[in-house]
Amino acid sequence: MAGQSRPYRAQSCPIADALGIIGDRWTILIIRDAQLGVSRFEGFQNSLGVSRNVLAMRLKLLVGAGIFRRRPLRADGRRHEYVLTEKGLALSTVLIALLDWGERWMPDRRGPRAVTVDRDSGRPVSLRLSRDEDGATVTPSEVRILAGPEARRQRHVA
Amino acid sequence: MAGQSRPYRAQSCPIADALGIIGDRWTILIIRDAQLGVSRFEGFQNSLGVSRNVLAMRLKLLVGAGIFRRRPLRADGRRHEYVLTEKGLALSTVLIALLDWGERWMPDRRGPRAVTVDRDSGRPVSLRLSRDEDGATVTPSEVRILAGPEARRQRHVA
Repeated sequence: MAGQSRPYRAQSCPIADALGIIGDRWTILIIRDAQLGVSRFEGFQNSLGVSRNVLAMRLKLLVGAGIFRRRPLRADGRRHEYVLTEKGLALSTVLIALLDWGERWMPDRRGPRAVTVDRDSGRPVSLRLSRDEDGATVTPSEVRILAGPEARRQRHVA
Repeated sequence: MAGQSRPYRAQSCPIADALGIIGDRWTILIIRDAQLGVSRFEGFQNSLGVSRNVLAMRLKLLVGAGIFRRRPLRADGRRHEYVLTEKGLALSTVLIALLDWGERWMPDRRGPRAVTVDRDSGRPVSLRLSRDEDGATVTPSEVRILAGPEARRQRHVA
């Protein structure tokens, strides 16, 4: 997280770190497809219409970054599928934040295009900002991001 | 949100829509800086070390997409600053999701680099997935994203 007057490049920022891995549009859409159940190279290619080269490169990067792991489909190891790791699965928060924002600010007049539900009960699940102390929901304008030394001080107080 | 077998390009997806606007790394970092208080062209440039051309292009795109509005700094309108709109401010959920993921999975050994707090009280605020019916927190692996017709059916049931 960069301060106002210090150059971004000299700073350590968790948002920039995250974008270093997933800041590419294809990458996020690959992870979206994986969340929806796609696991094979051809599946991603069919869904995204991306070139084999680009897809192979992105999948390799994502395996290297610990987002996907390769799981053999056959005993001879010549075919495999891509499975999200815990680290990759944790990105669903980012996907759902994008999903909610897209639905709210760029809605389709035909109705909702995607919703998030509890896997077991099928009941709706939402992403919310809430105060740690009492669980009260807060709006984006009520939240402040503290960066650098301010963040470390806050963490000690909290 | 694309189904497993239908090509992405033929589908309407709120995540893809959102990425159509903010799927560029610089764009997300510009919005991050705005959240941290930067509002002038030179401020963004200092913080990001991005070329004037790229920055001007991105800001123009973000004003056109309703993420920023331009506010005159002087009566003659020759200088102005960039202020996040409600639509732009709503992206803080995406930023915080990226922030949390970066802090959790790519931590800095020196300690937390960024935290989110309530603007008034300064107390910690967190992004959480929770069930709408009882507010219980759910983990990413417990959440399922429904897309297309499935999503519309669910919305009617809920």
